[in-house]
Amino acid sequence: MRILGIDPGVATVGFGIVDATRQKNELVRFGVISTPAGLPLSRRLVQIYTDLQELISTFHPDEMAVEELFFNTNLTTGISVAHGRGVILLAAEQLGVPIFEYTPMQVKQAVVGYGKAEKRQVMLMTQRLLGLRQIPRPDDAADALAIAICHARSATSLLNQERVFDPGRYDTR
Amino acid sequence: MRILGIDPGVATVGFGIVDATRQKNELVRFGVISTPAGLPLSRRLVQIYTDLQELISTFHPDEMAVEELFFNTNLTTGISVAHGRGVILLAAEQLGVPIFEYTPMQVKQAVVGYGKAEKRQVMLMTQRLLGLRQIPRPDDAADALAIAICHARSATSLLNQERVFDPGRYDTR
Repeated sequence: MRILGIDPGVATVGFGIVDATRQKNELVRFGVISTPAGLPLSRRLVQIYTDLQELISTFHPDEMAVEELFFNTNLTTGISVAHGRGVILLAAEQLGVPIFEYTPMQVKQAVVGYGKAEKRQVMLMTQRLLGLRQIPRPDDAADALAIAICHARSATSLLNQERVFDPGRYDTR
Repeated sequence: MRILGIDPGVATVGFGIVDATRQKNELVRFGVISTPAGLPLSRRLVQIYTDLQELISTFHPDEMAVEELFFNTNLTTGISVAHGRGVILLAAEQLGVPIFEYTPMQVKQAVVGYGKAEKRQVMLMTQRLLGLRQIPRPDDAADALAIAICHARSATSLLNQERVFDPGRYDTR
């Protein structure tokens, strides 16, 4: 099963695509959608929407996993991120990609095995679980991969992996 | 000039359409886009996006005025409203409608002449300025009309009204 992990935002949206089986998680692609700071919010939202639609149309993920929002620290950032998250959910729903949401604590628990793990530990485990030489860069892309892995390890996802996995479908060459 | 005022939300998006000249503001249409509480957020966002696109395609507003968000009171509501506001800005931008944003205080100042006016006063002035028999219902629609009037009375808008107003364009029969 192919999973698209998303770390939502407006300036930067991290994405990470992983092919998940019960045995292992294989990296397909990761990166960020970046929007210029000088652009009005509405135009940045159009770019995020368009780029995410293209990403989905190119890689055909079976499911999308996206981080839930918590506004404990920076309210202004939170407002902006929620605008971006709105158009991300819209694009996935319109293209028929089922959406799953996880809290930062659930991601840490799933990836590191400890809900209060440090950011660095999450990144190192993400690197290891995907068999990469380096920690993926930038951070937003690494976060998105961690969210994808979190979903790959969730109960819902494991059930679906048994049901729908078909290796031939995931040949992207 | 035709102005679409929007009171953003997810459960209920208020809208109010006003034809504005330097002399007066004339009501075109008002109402709400309501989404069922049981629906997942992503599907509610699709409905808001689709309905707003249809509203814009039907009434051809020259400009859209939308309330800015402040999260002083209820954070959870604020997160949800910002998701809705994201897809509202997206739909307007994609259809080429220029977007203007106002704080609740600016709306009160423009409609009542006093930035700390009571909600009831804003509604009564909205009713009076549009020459209506009753206060528009529900509240979200009345709020949207107040935002449209606020934009109609703004400096930017008054300049545009001189430039682009053409009464023949606004015959909706």
